[in-house]
Amino acid sequence: MKRIVCFFITTLIFGFSMSAEEGMFPLSEIHKLDLKAMGFLVGPRDIYNPNGVSLVDGIINLGGCTASFVSGEGLILTNYHCAFGAVQAVATPENDYLRDGFYAAERSAEIPAKRYTVRLIESYRDVSREILTAIKKKMSYAQRSKAIEEKSKRMVVAFEKSNPGKRAEVAEMFRGKTYVLFVYNYIKDVRLVYAPPRSIGEYGGEEDNWMWPRHTGDFAFMRAYVAPDGSNAEFSLQNVPFRPKKYFPVAAEGVRNEDFAFILGYPGSTHRHKSSHYLAFEENIRMPFMVDLYRWIIGLKEEMSAGNRGVAIKLSSSLKGLWNTVTRSLGQLQGMKNLHLVEQRQREEISLQKFIDSDPVRRRKYGSLLADLAKVYEDKAKRSRRDLTLSNLLSNRISIIMGNAFKICEASHERVKKDTQREAAYMERNFDRTEKQMTMALRDYHEPTEKALLKEMLRRAAAFRDKQAIPAVRDICAGSEESMALDAFLQKSFAATKLNDPKIVSACLKKNNAQLRTMNDPFINLAFALYPDHREMKEDEKIKKGILDQLLAKLVDVKRELLGRDFIPDANGTLRLTRGRIRGYSPADAIRMQSFTTLGGIVEKHATHPGLASYQAPEKLLELAKARDYGRFAHPDLDDVPVAMLYDMDTTGGNSGSPVFNPRGELIGLNFDRVFEATINDFAWDESYSRSIGVDMRFILWSLAKFSGAERLLAEMGIK
Amino acid sequence: MKRIVCFFITTLIFGFSMSAEEGMFPLSEIHKLDLKAMGFLVGPRDIYNPNGVSLVDGIINLGGCTASFVSGEGLILTNYHCAFGAVQAVATPENDYLRDGFYAAERSAEIPAKRYTVRLIESYRDVSREILTAIKKKMSYAQRSKAIEEKSKRMVVAFEKSNPGKRAEVAEMFRGKTYVLFVYNYIKDVRLVYAPPRSIGEYGGEEDNWMWPRHTGDFAFMRAYVAPDGSNAEFSLQNVPFRPKKYFPVAAEGVRNEDFAFILGYPGSTHRHKSSHYLAFEENIRMPFMVDLYRWIIGLKEEMSAGNRGVAIKLSSSLKGLWNTVTRSLGQLQGMKNLHLVEQRQREEISLQKFIDSDPVRRRKYGSLLADLAKVYEDKAKRSRRDLTLSNLLSNRISIIMGNAFKICEASHERVKKDTQREAAYMERNFDRTEKQMTMALRDYHEPTEKALLKEMLRRAAAFRDKQAIPAVRDICAGSEESMALDAFLQKSFAATKLNDPKIVSACLKKNNAQLRTMNDPFINLAFALYPDHREMKEDEKIKKGILDQLLAKLVDVKRELLGRDFIPDANGTLRLTRGRIRGYSPADAIRMQSFTTLGGIVEKHATHPGLASYQAPEKLLELAKARDYGRFAHPDLDDVPVAMLYDMDTTGGNSGSPVFNPRGELIGLNFDRVFEATINDFAWDESYSRSIGVDMRFILWSLAKFSGAERLLAEMGIK
Repeated sequence: MKRIVCFFITTLIFGFSMSAEEGMFPLSEIHKLDLKAMGFLVGPRDIYNPNGVSLVDGIINLGGCTASFVSGEGLILTNYHCAFGAVQAVATPENDYLRDGFYAAERSAEIPAKRYTVRLIESYRDVSREILTAIKKKMSYAQRSKAIEEKSKRMVVAFEKSNPGKRAEVAEMFRGKTYVLFVYNYIKDVRLVYAPPRSIGEYGGEEDNWMWPRHTGDFAFMRAYVAPDGSNAEFSLQNVPFRPKKYFPVAAEGVRNEDFAFILGYPGSTHRHKSSHYLAFEENIRMPFMVDLYRWIIGLKEEMSAGNRGVAIKLSSSLKGLWNTVTRSLGQLQGMKNLHLVEQRQREEISLQKFIDSDPVRRRKYGSLLADLAKVYEDKAKRSRRDLTLSNLLSNRISIIMGNAFKICEASHERVKKDTQREAAYMERNFDRTEKQMTMALRDYHEPTEKALLKEMLRRAAAFRDKQAIPAVRDICAGSEESMALDAFLQKSFAATKLNDPKIVSACLKKNNAQLRTMNDPFINLAFALYPDHREMKEDEKIKKGILDQLLAKLVDVKRELLGRDFIPDANGTLRLTRGRIRGYSPADAIRMQSFTTLGGIVEKHATHPGLASYQAPEKLLELAKARDYGRFAHPDLDDVPVAMLYDMDTTGGNSGSPVFNPRGELIGLNFDRVFEATINDFAWDESYSRSIGVDMRFILWSLAKFSGAERLLAEMGIK
Repeated sequence: MKRIVCFFITTLIFGFSMSAEEGMFPLSEIHKLDLKAMGFLVGPRDIYNPNGVSLVDGIINLGGCTASFVSGEGLILTNYHCAFGAVQAVATPENDYLRDGFYAAERSAEIPAKRYTVRLIESYRDVSREILTAIKKKMSYAQRSKAIEEKSKRMVVAFEKSNPGKRAEVAEMFRGKTYVLFVYNYIKDVRLVYAPPRSIGEYGGEEDNWMWPRHTGDFAFMRAYVAPDGSNAEFSLQNVPFRPKKYFPVAAEGVRNEDFAFILGYPGSTHRHKSSHYLAFEENIRMPFMVDLYRWIIGLKEEMSAGNRGVAIKLSSSLKGLWNTVTRSLGQLQGMKNLHLVEQRQREEISLQKFIDSDPVRRRKYGSLLADLAKVYEDKAKRSRRDLTLSNLLSNRISIIMGNAFKICEASHERVKKDTQREAAYMERNFDRTEKQMTMALRDYHEPTEKALLKEMLRRAAAFRDKQAIPAVRDICAGSEESMALDAFLQKSFAATKLNDPKIVSACLKKNNAQLRTMNDPFINLAFALYPDHREMKEDEKIKKGILDQLLAKLVDVKRELLGRDFIPDANGTLRLTRGRIRGYSPADAIRMQSFTTLGGIVEKHATHPGLASYQAPEKLLELAKARDYGRFAHPDLDDVPVAMLYDMDTTGGNSGSPVFNPRGELIGLNFDRVFEATINDFAWDESYSRSIGVDMRFILWSLAKFSGAERLLAEMGIK
């Protein structure tokens, strides 16, 4: 984990100003841009056209990732790591698709990917005015927060009622200020078509994750299916391939260094407009807490996986996720420290305060704004370690059984409320999905891991005292030595619980409070005992959210006044456009990273790291590379097949699987990662070090043609 | 220690042939070269002229390093790591010159560097014919080996007798074939003039050793003094600065990427013409043995140094040396593996054997040559681990006290022989130096470290059984549990010995066998008990050397026949010329190392590694860098002061401190290291990865001018 991130400091010391090239443009901004001057050969209407066909129609959201259609028959290209859950779900020690890869030689062999749905964007419109009417002057902060929430939910439910089969989401663009209603179409029958062996799709493993030079063939193919009448349907053999309005052709000639490129995708979230207090909270409290916890869990899961292929397959997906988060967080922590991001933001806030104080009107309006923000985070910091412990104890991403038990308990409290007043997970429109998520989670259930995880979480929760104490947990430990008491409790509870059975989980989720109590399941009982603490925590969060909504809305206003210009809202999981160039960078004095890696580089890494599992490439790939059997897929400047490429576009998590386009909107690659230095993208962006990583389309085609002989897919994409 | 050395393989896979640019040319070869075509602006006579003044007259050997004169008053420029022993010897916790650096603001403040001598080359001549007359037809291999040794010694002693004050050395150029008599002049009064703080002179420490990018200000200044009449003399206040025949001007304009440059220096040894058996022995036996042993010693010494500045200063010099060897050996082991060097040489030998077998005359002459070579190494391998253990147990570079005791014992056996038949260390001409080396070693004596070291060495030595058993060591462990027995022996022995006193060591060295035995010193007793084993080992070595001398001489002959051309002998510590260009390289797919590092890079490393001691730069340096106070020393392309530079010249250990010249023979830098990939230089050289590292002269001048205000030295070098 010894990482060198040297270059940040140049920005600091030599005072380069942040580049103006930053930008994840929302759809609503695209028509304001001079695309031609930027280098595009397509116009705004080619990118988004609510009344016709545009690029946006080929872009989908697939299980939190971005993906795109690459044939008229619903063939989808996304990252291997996005499809990984589907591969893992059907892999067994006998049919080890993780090890060997998967290729459905004919359509009937395509395997259902049960956890996956395809989300297509239909339309969007600004609903800020309507949403904000929900706020009345005399409301408390918690009331304001709830009012906005409920108003959004009501709008969504109303829309969905009058547009059956569609789903709507209200996205907050600027906190407490601007809201957009997005309308989506969902396809539920998604199938796995092609995945390379893990030794290609995940080549480099954790060693190379968030790193450059990279040689990962991080791509996979899936397919969307619909009912014969074109409507969305659950998996059925009668279903037929979905015919997308738009799919993307492949740019046969590939791409070269310094070429213009652009990306459409669903970046998750960035925090570039938040206060120094938020940044300090992340740097000093939340991220170190999560890194510490996740590192412990990784250690546990790796121990459990060692020497047991069955367990290893079960735990592999969550381990990937944990590693990914830990490495990214370490990169971000290092970046924040190196860039002195908190201090920098503090200095900006001092200037802002001066600007506010320099005018009596402004002073009246914003005078206490920054102090009020400080107050919120001061308060939050006090209870955050305890709240983080509690919420992780109750999350089924840590302990599946405890997390599910808590959801069952919470559902029984929420389902007695009016639909739009419920927590989102228990609203009618989301209830099935919540149920599916809970029962699917049980696929990865491994009791010894659960026991060890829960013991540790309870041990951590038991450590809080006084006002922060969590009585239900302390009760378990009472009267005996803590570790022994926890062991005894877990021994008894795992013997008695029925929550390892997905059918019982489904049934319980629909039971009311009284029915659940009579079940006397130890984990449901514990969930009930913890519920009041969790409720109080949630309430506090809503109050703080209400306050921040107001304060951050004001912050954006006064910053606009100060800068005399508009800026782009932080990423929020909605569709964004970013553009830039295929380009290397310098991570440190005297080192220059070049923009393409090659097949030859895989041969190098394989040969020079005989002991390192994640650098072992398939024998067949090595032979093809050594025979220089490149077909038509070589890069003319490299005389080798390009594997991965770097570009200076503005991406973040959620952009995984985004298509990378040439100026004409043809596919040249598939985005899958950022370099370590660019993990800080979430908080700050700079052309000198913010680089994202894509698989070069030529490597994808070469793999299909030479490595897998997947002629069917090449033909379907129009490649001979 | 996780090092990535990826590029070797490209050579292997894509079959690049070795570049023809390899070459450490001996003085005798220089007149054969077309210097002008190569890029030199000086001719062969400017480089070496026995009847006039040439560059060679400004080059000296300083304690195993190369150094050069940079003023008419004997001012010497060499590496910080070469002068380190002198700084360490005078540093104390109160006057911590290691931490603070040293600058003698006036000449009278220059401090004697007692362990140092300056060696200047006076002349050389080929003496192969004379040496080889010593060999008679009926001699055994051991006799041949001894005959050559004695003949060389007699020649040297005879020369020195008729040329008082000079020293001669016979250097073997091609094993068993060509011999050159070098005549040297020695200056014994050497003083420390300037050393930067260790945080400059050793910046990057072990993290960066053998690495690029590098930011080490690895330079120091010393001065040679002679008696007022110009003769060589020991230190005296009456001595005056030595006036060298030649000293080097500084190239004020510096150097740029792709500029031509050359180096004169004393590369230690390379093994490019040896057999696959030698390479396999190094790869499989000797280097792994030394790495394992040295790593253990490093662990011990670091533990002993922790928290005790006095001990840390004592052990620092040997720790540096151990680390240096370990890292280099790891690089070499990795390089040998990656390049498949043994297999490659084996393939060459198969071709050679075919060539031999293809002609009856050749077959008669060389038919069994390769099989005979195999036999020697087969035999050597069998006993090598035991012999390595024994010789390290008896070396004062491991345990000072045991090593000195052994030298005392060996001296008493050798000094009864005729001078030219003695082991070199005990010949009259070397005896004083041996004594000085032994007593100086005691400066670093630290009893707890010695005890632990000796226990481990004895424990290792006790493990050999049967024919390889070392009886004297097994006796110590007899009759009790091994660890307890060793503790008891060491406890008693360290309490009783007097060999921690340099005066007693000096006295003992002159005692005869009987006198020593009556002393009853436990370590001298042990040395006597081990002497027969050591004698037998030495005898075996001489036999093997005799065989190899013959075989390797033949090998060179038949290889010449095969290739139809001459080649350059392996480095052997004699003066060599190498030339090339200031040039970066690619250590792995998609990474390009650039040829200069900068002051800005130091600021970067410092800021981004707050916890790493070896990346902490002096506050003053950081302030100057931030203020961009570069004076006239900036590199025009970088707009920063260049710190270190890369070039593709052919160097090895012993080239440390070599001046780097521009085509006119003016100083542009100071060689101090190779990149990790080039550690393999000792066995194979290739333009694609063999890069050496120098301090840029502009950084040296900037440090003197801006960091230290050392105006006196700048003026002396003619810099205003």
